[in-house]
Amino acid sequence: MRLLNEELLHSNLGVRDGHLTFAGYDTVELCEKYGTPLMLLDEGRIRHRMRLYRDAMAEYFGEGSYPLYASKALSFRGMYTLAAQEGIGTDIVSVGELYIAHGAGFPLEKAFFHGNCKTDADIAYAMDVGIGYFVVDTQDELSAISRISGEKGITQKILLRLSPGIDPHTHKAISTGSVDSKFGTAIETGQALALTRTALATPAVSLEGFHCHIGSQIFELQPFCDAASVMLSFVGEVARETGFCAPVLNLGGGFGVRYTADQPEMDYRENIRLLADFVAVTCTRLGIPQPRILMEPGRSIVADSGMTLYRVGSIKEITGYKNYVAVDGGMTDNPRYALYEAPYTVYLANRMDEAADYPCTLAGRCCESGDILQENITLPRPRRGDTVAVAVTGAYNYSMASNYNRVPRPPIVLLGDVDRLAVRRETPADVAALDEPID
Amino acid sequence: MRLLNEELLHSNLGVRDGHLTFAGYDTVELCEKYGTPLMLLDEGRIRHRMRLYRDAMAEYFGEGSYPLYASKALSFRGMYTLAAQEGIGTDIVSVGELYIAHGAGFPLEKAFFHGNCKTDADIAYAMDVGIGYFVVDTQDELSAISRISGEKGITQKILLRLSPGIDPHTHKAISTGSVDSKFGTAIETGQALALTRTALATPAVSLEGFHCHIGSQIFELQPFCDAASVMLSFVGEVARETGFCAPVLNLGGGFGVRYTADQPEMDYRENIRLLADFVAVTCTRLGIPQPRILMEPGRSIVADSGMTLYRVGSIKEITGYKNYVAVDGGMTDNPRYALYEAPYTVYLANRMDEAADYPCTLAGRCCESGDILQENITLPRPRRGDTVAVAVTGAYNYSMASNYNRVPRPPIVLLGDVDRLAVRRETPADVAALDEPID
Repeated sequence: MRLLNEELLHSNLGVRDGHLTFAGYDTVELCEKYGTPLMLLDEGRIRHRMRLYRDAMAEYFGEGSYPLYASKALSFRGMYTLAAQEGIGTDIVSVGELYIAHGAGFPLEKAFFHGNCKTDADIAYAMDVGIGYFVVDTQDELSAISRISGEKGITQKILLRLSPGIDPHTHKAISTGSVDSKFGTAIETGQALALTRTALATPAVSLEGFHCHIGSQIFELQPFCDAASVMLSFVGEVARETGFCAPVLNLGGGFGVRYTADQPEMDYRENIRLLADFVAVTCTRLGIPQPRILMEPGRSIVADSGMTLYRVGSIKEITGYKNYVAVDGGMTDNPRYALYEAPYTVYLANRMDEAADYPCTLAGRCCESGDILQENITLPRPRRGDTVAVAVTGAYNYSMASNYNRVPRPPIVLLGDVDRLAVRRETPADVAALDEPID
Repeated sequence: MRLLNEELLHSNLGVRDGHLTFAGYDTVELCEKYGTPLMLLDEGRIRHRMRLYRDAMAEYFGEGSYPLYASKALSFRGMYTLAAQEGIGTDIVSVGELYIAHGAGFPLEKAFFHGNCKTDADIAYAMDVGIGYFVVDTQDELSAISRISGEKGITQKILLRLSPGIDPHTHKAISTGSVDSKFGTAIETGQALALTRTALATPAVSLEGFHCHIGSQIFELQPFCDAASVMLSFVGEVARETGFCAPVLNLGGGFGVRYTADQPEMDYRENIRLLADFVAVTCTRLGIPQPRILMEPGRSIVADSGMTLYRVGSIKEITGYKNYVAVDGGMTDNPRYALYEAPYTVYLANRMDEAADYPCTLAGRCCESGDILQENITLPRPRRGDTVAVAVTGAYNYSMASNYNRVPRPPIVLLGDVDRLAVRRETPADVAALDEPID
């Protein structure tokens, strides 16, 4: 059986001489060159997605509307370089991410600082490097920003993060827009309007608008329209109540990505067009000028540009129970199955021309039963030394990686015109670098 | 209200001048000295537990029986130093752990190499540094060890990891002894006996006995007796069938630790005594000589010797819903609530003399709704800047820590006669150290 490209999950996957290809590269050859586990990134696809969001948002929402790469999805120096080169903004959620963006030379006036717990030190550092906006989560944070920007003699631009009360019914851990959330200030309870009044009266800050983020891995447009409707109604209410007409509305991220064949592939451009139509109509209905719209794609920029490759270490056939295939990585580089039972598509990369008729569970190498990459898949019957590919690992894999079991993290190889290391392989010495002798 | 020491969770907790003390140290002062988040370890308590296992096992199981510190619970250089100084063995599960143990000068003849996916490179490295034993998980691994030890001209001591078919009914992710497990070879299916026969006939390896591990956080002795019974019966069966009388039986770890007031505090010494009685009686009943017994305590060595301290960043009171208290750490340093909804006890460390009557949920700083440290607790009503202590974080916290959101990992301060850094605080520069420029 020769698998055809169109049977594979995404257009950047292919088969050549029985080997899985990714972004045109032979994945088995890359494993020989770089070792395993190995994370690959399709540079062309990342750039294409950044441009798609950039161009579609400018075209449909109008000038001044642009995407922010939600860099928590995958944050290393090169990602900020790509975002800067493609002319989009970024959202960062910590001093760590900001430090890396700054080091990459990212234009920080287009950087937005998120997060529900910014310390005074975080705030001061961000102002010192010239962060564009704070996305303010609470009154506590607003007070701290005002105090610190006052001390520095600057006026800090801010958005307020609000919870619109939209529940997109995804996994609880990645649903963020409902009222009972650690993020944002609730519109429903009247607290958002109160915080807005306070912000407008707070010295040394300039309120530029509002932000919401309803969740992640959402394939339908309706929840985004619902959220936009709530947020725009709030913009209108604020305008009536205070005279402040918000110039910016940040609708967050959340567009879905296809991880498995039973999930759809979302047309991001078309959904941006439809959302823009909805926003325009809603603004007209509400009688408010349309704010500049920001969106925060993370997963949909980088997820299906990623792949992780492993080598098989053992096959365990438990008579009458199950077959376990163990590989030389796992929850240390991809904790999403352990955390959410996240679905993934798995290939036996070095024998793509054989029938995938062997039922098995793909286990990681950690000493933890929960270290599973995917349960109940089928592969050609694997052997020790075979190459396993897990597709669509660009988002929330490397960024969530740990050194559990003191397992070093894999390198990231960027596949463009050439293949090049964007993050080098961690070594045991790196893992031990923070340890101090105590004897 | 003045909390009395005996109302606190463990004897190494106390209150002085309204501040929480740990191992006799004022936790609020330690936060001022070292910053937050901060991980503390009670050196005296760790040493005490190592000695307790060492002495009780020698006394009740007899000479040659000893504990192996299961270092995946918390693996940094200093832990191997403590284990070496207290004269116990260790189990390691990766080259990373082995590298650190070796660097600390740990006597590796008492190190046991676990894991379900050892690569050829792992095996060769472990032999080169003089690992005592491999705990062999599969036929694939047995073949690889034999080939590599043959090439090196050595005879490698091994145990076989078996699954005894005991399910202690804890969380699925930390239950490991049932037949349907990625670990071990099943006795029930006859595969364990077959693998034993193969191992006895395999060149360049010396089979020394068997290993099992039924799970974690088990408070009753019965599952351990059940497992010992199955394993000893297997030892007897092997002796009858092959003439091989296993000199070593490793019963793994799994004794429970008190995380919250509703959990018991286990008397480890007494349980070791009772288990030893059971093992002796069973060996007599089966007519086999008693093997040397090994056990692998990890959590019960280090968990309640650990504490994590945070500063409060914000308090969010959602009218009609819930109060969220956000701190400057979270799932990056303690992913156990996100993974297992693990229970923890939380204190407001700087105001221990106030009534804990404010209901709230303790949230971490990550941009992820699942980043919760504990739900539905009560504290004195917190304010930004307050110090929060999460108790019993010594095991599977730092060892599972990540740089999600590019958040650096906290330092570990060892509290003995003096307080001293055992692991220094990670910096954003450390986090970015592997990134390569791509422009």
